[in-house]
Order: sequence, then structure tokens, then C-alpha cells
Amino acid sequence: MISHSYKIRINYSDTDKMGFVHHSNYARIYENARWELLREIGIPYSKIEELGIFMPVVDMSFKFIKPAFYDDVLTVTTTILEFPTSRIKFKFELKNEVGEIINVAKLTCAFIDSITSKPQRPPKILLEKLNLNSVSK
Amino acid sequence: MISHSYKIRINYSDTDKMGFVHHSNYARIYENARWELLREIGIPYSKIEELGIFMPVVDMSFKFIKPAFYDDVLTVTTTILEFPTSRIKFKFELKNEVGEIINVAKLTCAFIDSITSKPQRPPKILLEKLNLNSVSK
Amino acid sequence: MISHSYKIRINYSDTDKMGFVHHSNYARIYENARWELLREIGIPYSKIEELGIFMPVVDMSFKFIKPAFYDDVLTVTTTILEFPTSRIKFKFELKNEVGEIINVAKLTCAFIDSITSKPQRPPKILLEKLNLNSVSK
Amino acid sequence: MISHSYKIRINYSDTDKMGFVHHSNYARIYENARWELLREIGIPYSKIEELGIFMPVVDMSFKFIKPAFYDDVLTVTTTILEFPTSRIKFKFELKNEVGEIINVAKLTCAFIDSITSKPQRPPKILLEKLNLNSVSK
Repeated sequence: MISHSYKIRINYSDTDKMGFVHHSNYARIYENARWELLREIGIPYSKIEELGIFMPVVDMSFKFIKPAFYDDVLTVTTTILEFPTSRIKFKFELKNEVGEIINVAKLTCAFIDSITSKPQRPPKILLEKLNLNSVSK
Repeated sequence: MISHSYKIRINYSDTDKMGFVHHSNYARIYENARWELLREIGIPYSKIEELGIFMPVVDMSFKFIKPAFYDDVLTVTTTILEFPTSRIKFKFELKNEVGEIINVAKLTCAFIDSITSKPQRPPKILLEKLNLNSVSK
Repeated sequence: MISHSYKIRINYSDTDKMGFVHHSNYARIYENARWELLREIGIPYSKIEELGIFMPVVDMSFKFIKPAFYDDVLTVTTTILEFPTSRIKFKFELKNEVGEIINVAKLTCAFIDSITSKPQRPPKILLEKLNLNSVSK
Repeated sequence: MISHSYKIRINYSDTDKMGFVHHSNYARIYENARWELLREIGIPYSKIEELGIFMPVVDMSFKFIKPAFYDDVLTVTTTILEFPTSRIKFKFELKNEVGEIINVAKLTCAFIDSITSKPQRPPKILLEKLNLNSVSK
């Protein structure tokens, strides 16, 4: 199972008048996290787009356990849940500075042709990397 | 069952380099939609906050069926799924100009005290309005 | 001088932990306002992009006089300051519900080819409309 | 003169359908940059808010020289232009990976009481740090 963690800092513009991080921003946090995972295994998402493939979101779900606040340094852990055939599934976990899980999410991306929007097989280079990593880890 | 529909126009800043509405923006579309529903029954969300109650999101899930594009005029339909006790559940449906459903979502809000963040009963005025409306509709 | 006013309502996601509308959101408010002006004179911005022309922002400046708050209904007035040659200049004014000016801004857009990014003359249909309107108003 | 540079990576959600970073996002980039400068001199902005002081934006202006793209790693340089009395002025410069300046901006923040919104003197700890640094640099 391929997994990846990194730290992010909450920006002022991410907050709302409740003083919490607005719920719409978690989708942006997790988008950055999954592309950081791909960068780490050597296939930045920008490279996938250069191959003529887009990876739009097909479904996503979030559970909000505790709020996040301005200037918090959070740890995002991204895991690839299912080896991609025509879709790829991610799981996310967000921890605050004292190690409490404050948010969890699941998300599915499709692979589509960037011109025709038709479903595609994942790029070979991605399959090879994922396969290689899943063996080695 | 209380339900409410209205039309929105997609802004340029809602799009991303794929040319689609970025998936993080649906949470903002549906936030506006549920507060428009409350406004329609006579309890704007700003009034609920004035009573010292916040309604943060507890969970949300989205299914992306077709993309939305710049300048599209979409119809959002919001339905209250469960009569609130300590939480309230909404269902959303987004249709494009030819009447196709392009996105569906479910979302739960809690009622919390704006100072202590402790769970609260929904404000009486909201319960009365929802009750009244659920009878009359 | 071509001018256009319309009302907008401030969304919850536009606020930050100060309780004010975050300053980055004014650029989005004014973007919608200038494309509403173009729509009003019969040339929606989407039509300009269909002609292969983008109108990126070249410069913008804002003066924040009073804050805006959640659920405020504001009036945006957009004026075309300079008749477009290779660029077009807009002026914006934002008023609150009691008629006070709370924000003013100026902004310049260029006309560029959507493929080559090279500067372009404005589309003829826009020039004709602006000319016609500037005469008739 | 106090100055501070750091690198940021452009997120997917920052782009629009032109393929460029949407102009509204520069205000967010520069907000993070000025608070990183304050953090560097030992006064994180969160500490200023804890002292009961907000620093809302009073004016800002941007010049867009070249577009920024998804996944670009940009260098933001923030400089404090004027020693704060009741306001503080910042200057920003954004460079792409080949060292070209792609955006410049100026921005003024006020100091206000977080309860009354009345203008305030800057916090003493900030004045001391800025003074110390301006001497030592």
C-alpha cells in the first residue's frame, strides 16, 4: 500500500467567520496532498496532463471530526486505496499538532482524455511506478 | 419534505485549467443553496448565528456525474432530509440547462454553541418553521 | 460612458476569521461585475473567448474603505473608463445597504490570442457595441 | 530595510480555464508571504491577533507582467516599505523559476482593535522587533 505524509500550514484566507477552516478548503488540501504523493513516486500530475490525460474527481466524501484553525500545522496522510484500472481511489487523514485525527476523507479520480473527455486507461508510467512501489513497500 | 430550488451562474474564478468547475467549489454552491432554503422559510442563517449558534459541517459527500462550465446557469435543488434534533441533513441536486443531473450531494450540519463549541438543540424558531412548513407542504 | 450596476449577496465562504469579507474576494466580485456589464451590452465574455481571445488582468488596485460582512447585499457599479484599443480599463464602486461606498477599484484587461498569448485588437463585435452604446447613452 | 524571500508551489485550484493562475489568488500568495516575514522576525501574525489587534488591508495594487502556471515554483520577496506608525506598507515581487519578475504588488495594512475596529498603535513587540532588525540588517 502506497502512503505519503507531509505537513501543511493553514492560511488566513482558509478561515471563515466561525474562526474555523471553511469546509470547502479540505478538498484543496487533499488535492495538493494526492499530487504530492504522485510527485514523490516520480510522476508529477503535470506530467500526466502532458500525456493528454486529466484526472477529474468522480466522488468524494469527508468526515469533519474537529475544526482546524489559522496557523495550525497539520499532517496530511494520503494512501492509494485501490490500484488503478480506469479509476484510482485515495484515502486521506488529517492530524493536528497533538496527533489527533481531525478529518478523514475518501476520493475517486477517473482518467479521461483531455481532448475528448472519454475514459482512458491510466498512463503506463503511472502503472509501472505504482506496481514497482507496491512491491517494494 | 421541505425543498427549494434556485438558479446560479458559474463564475470564471470557479473554473480550473481543465476548463471545468473545480471540485472544491461545489461545497460553496451547496452552502449558499442551503442558506437560501433557510432564508425562504424565514430564518436566514445570519439570524441563527445571532442567537449564538453555529452550524458547522459534520460530514459531506459528492458524486460528480458531468462537469460544469464557465457561464453555465445551473439549478440547485436543496431538500431537508431529516428533521433536525441535534443535527440536520440536506440533500442537493445540481442540474444543467438541458435538465441533466450533473452533481448530487449529501451534507450534515451540527448545531453548536458559538462560544463553547458544545452541541446545542436547534433554535426554537427554526424548529417551529420547519414543523409548520413540513405540515403545510 | 458605459456604466452598469447590480446587486450581490456576500457568501459565508467569502468571510475570514476577522468576520470581514477576505480582501482576495473583491477581485472575484469585480470580475463577475465586469462580465455582467458585457453581458448587458450583448457580448458575454464567453463569446469573446469563443472568438479565440482571452482578457487577462494587467493591473488592478483596490481601496478598502469599510468592511463587508456575511449576508450583506452590496451594489456594484462598473464603469468602462477607457474605450478599448489594445486594453480596456474598468472602474468599480461597491456600496453597502445604506448607500455608503465601502470599496473602490480600478482594473485593466488586455486582449490576447488564446493560443499564442500575443496581444490582439479587441473583437469587432465588442468595439461596435461599445461605440453604439457610448453614443446612445 | 527588512526583506524576506521564500518559495511557493502553485496549486491546481489556483488556476482558471485560461490555464493561468487566477488574478484573485495573488492576494492570498502575498498574504501568506507577509505573515511569513513576521514569523521570521519572531512575531507570527497569530500572536498579534492574540493581543487584540487585527491588521486588515487598507489598499493594494498589483501589476501582472507574466502569467503563472500550475506546479510552478515561484519565489516571493516581501519588503517592509515603511516603518509602521498606524499603518504598515509592504512591497512584493514574484519571480518564476528562470528568475523573471512576473508580478509586483504594494499593500497597506492598518492596525485596528479586534473588538471596536478602532485604529490602534502597532503592538510594542512588533515595533521593537522591526526596529531591532532594521538596525541589524
